[in-house]
Amino acid sequence: MAMPSPGYSITVRVELPAGATATAALTTAVASAGGALTALDVAESRTDRLVVDVTCDTRDEEHGEGITEAIAGIPGAVVRKVSDQTFLLHLGGKIEVNPKVPLKHRDDLSRAYTPGVARICLAIARHPEDARRLTIKRNTVAVLTDGSAVLGLGNIGPLAALPVMEGKAALFKQFGGVDAWPVCLDTQDTDEIVEIARAIAPVYGGINLEDISAPRCFEIEARLREMLDIPVFHDDQHGTAIVVLAALTNALRVVGKSIADVRIVVSGVGAAGHAIIRLLLTQGARDIIGCGRDGAVHNGHEGMEPFRQWIADHTNSRHEAGSLKEVLAGADVFIGVSAPDLLTGDDIATMAPDAIVFAMANPVPEVDPIAASEHAKVVATGRSDYPNQINNVLVFPGFFRGLLDAGVSDITDTMMVAAATAIADCVEPEELNPSYIIPSVFDASVAPAVAAAVHAAAHAS
Amino acid sequence: MAMPSPGYSITVRVELPAGATATAALTTAVASAGGALTALDVAESRTDRLVVDVTCDTRDEEHGEGITEAIAGIPGAVVRKVSDQTFLLHLGGKIEVNPKVPLKHRDDLSRAYTPGVARICLAIARHPEDARRLTIKRNTVAVLTDGSAVLGLGNIGPLAALPVMEGKAALFKQFGGVDAWPVCLDTQDTDEIVEIARAIAPVYGGINLEDISAPRCFEIEARLREMLDIPVFHDDQHGTAIVVLAALTNALRVVGKSIADVRIVVSGVGAAGHAIIRLLLTQGARDIIGCGRDGAVHNGHEGMEPFRQWIADHTNSRHEAGSLKEVLAGADVFIGVSAPDLLTGDDIATMAPDAIVFAMANPVPEVDPIAASEHAKVVATGRSDYPNQINNVLVFPGFFRGLLDAGVSDITDTMMVAAATAIADCVEPEELNPSYIIPSVFDASVAPAVAAAVHAAAHAS
Repeated sequence: MAMPSPGYSITVRVELPAGATATAALTTAVASAGGALTALDVAESRTDRLVVDVTCDTRDEEHGEGITEAIAGIPGAVVRKVSDQTFLLHLGGKIEVNPKVPLKHRDDLSRAYTPGVARICLAIARHPEDARRLTIKRNTVAVLTDGSAVLGLGNIGPLAALPVMEGKAALFKQFGGVDAWPVCLDTQDTDEIVEIARAIAPVYGGINLEDISAPRCFEIEARLREMLDIPVFHDDQHGTAIVVLAALTNALRVVGKSIADVRIVVSGVGAAGHAIIRLLLTQGARDIIGCGRDGAVHNGHEGMEPFRQWIADHTNSRHEAGSLKEVLAGADVFIGVSAPDLLTGDDIATMAPDAIVFAMANPVPEVDPIAASEHAKVVATGRSDYPNQINNVLVFPGFFRGLLDAGVSDITDTMMVAAATAIADCVEPEELNPSYIIPSVFDASVAPAVAAAVHAAAHAS
Repeated sequence: MAMPSPGYSITVRVELPAGATATAALTTAVASAGGALTALDVAESRTDRLVVDVTCDTRDEEHGEGITEAIAGIPGAVVRKVSDQTFLLHLGGKIEVNPKVPLKHRDDLSRAYTPGVARICLAIARHPEDARRLTIKRNTVAVLTDGSAVLGLGNIGPLAALPVMEGKAALFKQFGGVDAWPVCLDTQDTDEIVEIARAIAPVYGGINLEDISAPRCFEIEARLREMLDIPVFHDDQHGTAIVVLAALTNALRVVGKSIADVRIVVSGVGAAGHAIIRLLLTQGARDIIGCGRDGAVHNGHEGMEPFRQWIADHTNSRHEAGSLKEVLAGADVFIGVSAPDLLTGDDIATMAPDAIVFAMANPVPEVDPIAASEHAKVVATGRSDYPNQINNVLVFPGFFRGLLDAGVSDITDTMMVAAATAIADCVEPEELNPSYIIPSVFDASVAPAVAAAVHAAAHAS
């Protein structure tokens, strides 16, 4: 059963008789219904009655109703209102646009707007490269999606994808100081998406492609990289690959193995899986097997889609053809970017000694992390409620900060590896252990370290 | 000759011998070179030397160089640096994106990002209308241009237009609380612009078309209004028409005439002129002549572009065919949205008694306002350094505030007239005089009044 989660936090406003046992009755009711109390605030107090806001994490909406009923069941209690914290937080959206310049009086307007702004326009018309100095192009990233592959929800379209893109933009500013803006496109035609991205590019210093389904995402990124003079980065591919490389680098240090010697199984051969495999190969991995829905990807099939064919051509030199469970036997590393509940603890037990397991399907991993920990040496997931959270938030804010500061047009493997190294090195040698192979997303040193590494790598090339 | 302007403000950092006359020498140097000193700050002070920052408005870059030379000519003075205030203000752009929600720890991320955000996505996927409540669509406007008609600079393209769009966005937030974002398109094809605007619409509650040349702007606006369920407003057309109507309403009160009785000449039959003529006709104007580059627009020509043909069909019932100067004789109202220096004081003298002159070509009006004031009763321009500044900033922030709050899909003439009335009524009857027919852009009551009027008009229909 799922744990109560802050994603399902509710606040119940209840009026009940004042008395020594009033708040105890509330905490008991919440606990008996399985809720996790996170706050209890007296909103109003009178001689005979109290109004209390009870905030707790729940498992899901049905559970929240059960907790509310338990509270209502307290003798003399009246539930006045139930607020869903997640929905409340989203009212009106999660980001805003603010001026950075004074606009208090005439002279301000004369500089920031007409007539002074005309001089800036003319300067850029004469020297377009000055736009990176004199406009927001210095610091902006478009977070661009068509809503075709959003989180674990699939093809929900551009409007329903907007809250995720807003959240991404909020994280870009919070961790990287980057001004990111959602671009949610009401089309899923590859040619149209490429043309629209090209047409809107003047405002942006970079483009972060997000939640666009494979295999269209590969073509869209490749064409835009060729066409534009600003960097284009599909985070679901490369952000994931970079943070996985960082975590693997440290996990291999913990177990004392090297990347060239380990057998790696990657579950999931879409955007993330493809990019992970590609990046690990550049770092010297020699034994990788990719698994899709039909088991190991190998060269026995015909008519494979080109990106899967590439995986077949560059991995699985022993031409193994079994299921995920079968090819996992004896592997040193499992990397999952696929689907929930594909493996059990018994499957992990078939892996090599000192196994490394990254089960990153979200929100339910490929294998239960507790069960995996009984057999593997190092276990990581994408979740915040287990150790070793592998999360792209460690990558994209600092990565784009570095790209924007360096003013580069292209993204190279060197920059990506530099970013992975910087993330891994945020864990000091004396801190490194099986439960701490990756820094926390709230470690304030990560984004600046990533930015500096990317900037330096950009200048070296 | 132009006056010194804050749009050309420079700061000269100069080191000179300390002494009782040091700063006097600086002010004298600036004045002798014709600069307008606005600030003098001692940056460093030692026993024998001072470092002073001298800030002054200049006429243009050449004049700034002359002032700098005059300062350098002070005995013992060394100019260390010259900074252009307008350019400094624009470094890195004029707007930024900020989170509105806390992102300090795990629970924050669980609500604002994964997994909590998935519930918001699902809610919108089920009920798309909830996007206006749960996302930034509640409060966003795209400021959309192709850079084909920017200020008085013409077709400078999307990148060079960006500083203007940033300024517009800054004003949208400052005066209307609206989150506006620049969309500068690298295409001038009408079909492409329409398709791109349609495709990006999910993020926005409204679209402000800006600086798109006539006649394409008419078709683009019309097609988008038909296609989209969010309001679309070309500010160069309707913002100008609304503020002109507001100013004219009050000017007619000052001179004691009514709109149905006056002869109106409009110079300029592009986007602004066309929209002004249309709106004045809905308000009962019966005698309007529009003038283009070739003089009065009338029905004698063939093969006129459709929007000019519309003007010919709806105005100039006497079929006058003369030049601007000729048709101006005996007119009660001149409205200029055209080009500089088309008329002299002598031309204004041929108008009817108690004439109204709105000379809004920017930055140099159709007629010198001082000269016009010798013959007309009420004179207005688009400039901030003369009385009666007619400026779209009085319209678009409050107008969109009202549209977003009302949640309407369409913009009606009723809403536009309501906005004009609200602006005019910000000037109290006892305040009204020939030099005060329109409120200041910094009058904080204007935008809320416009928003309320638009909202009320939206609900009435």
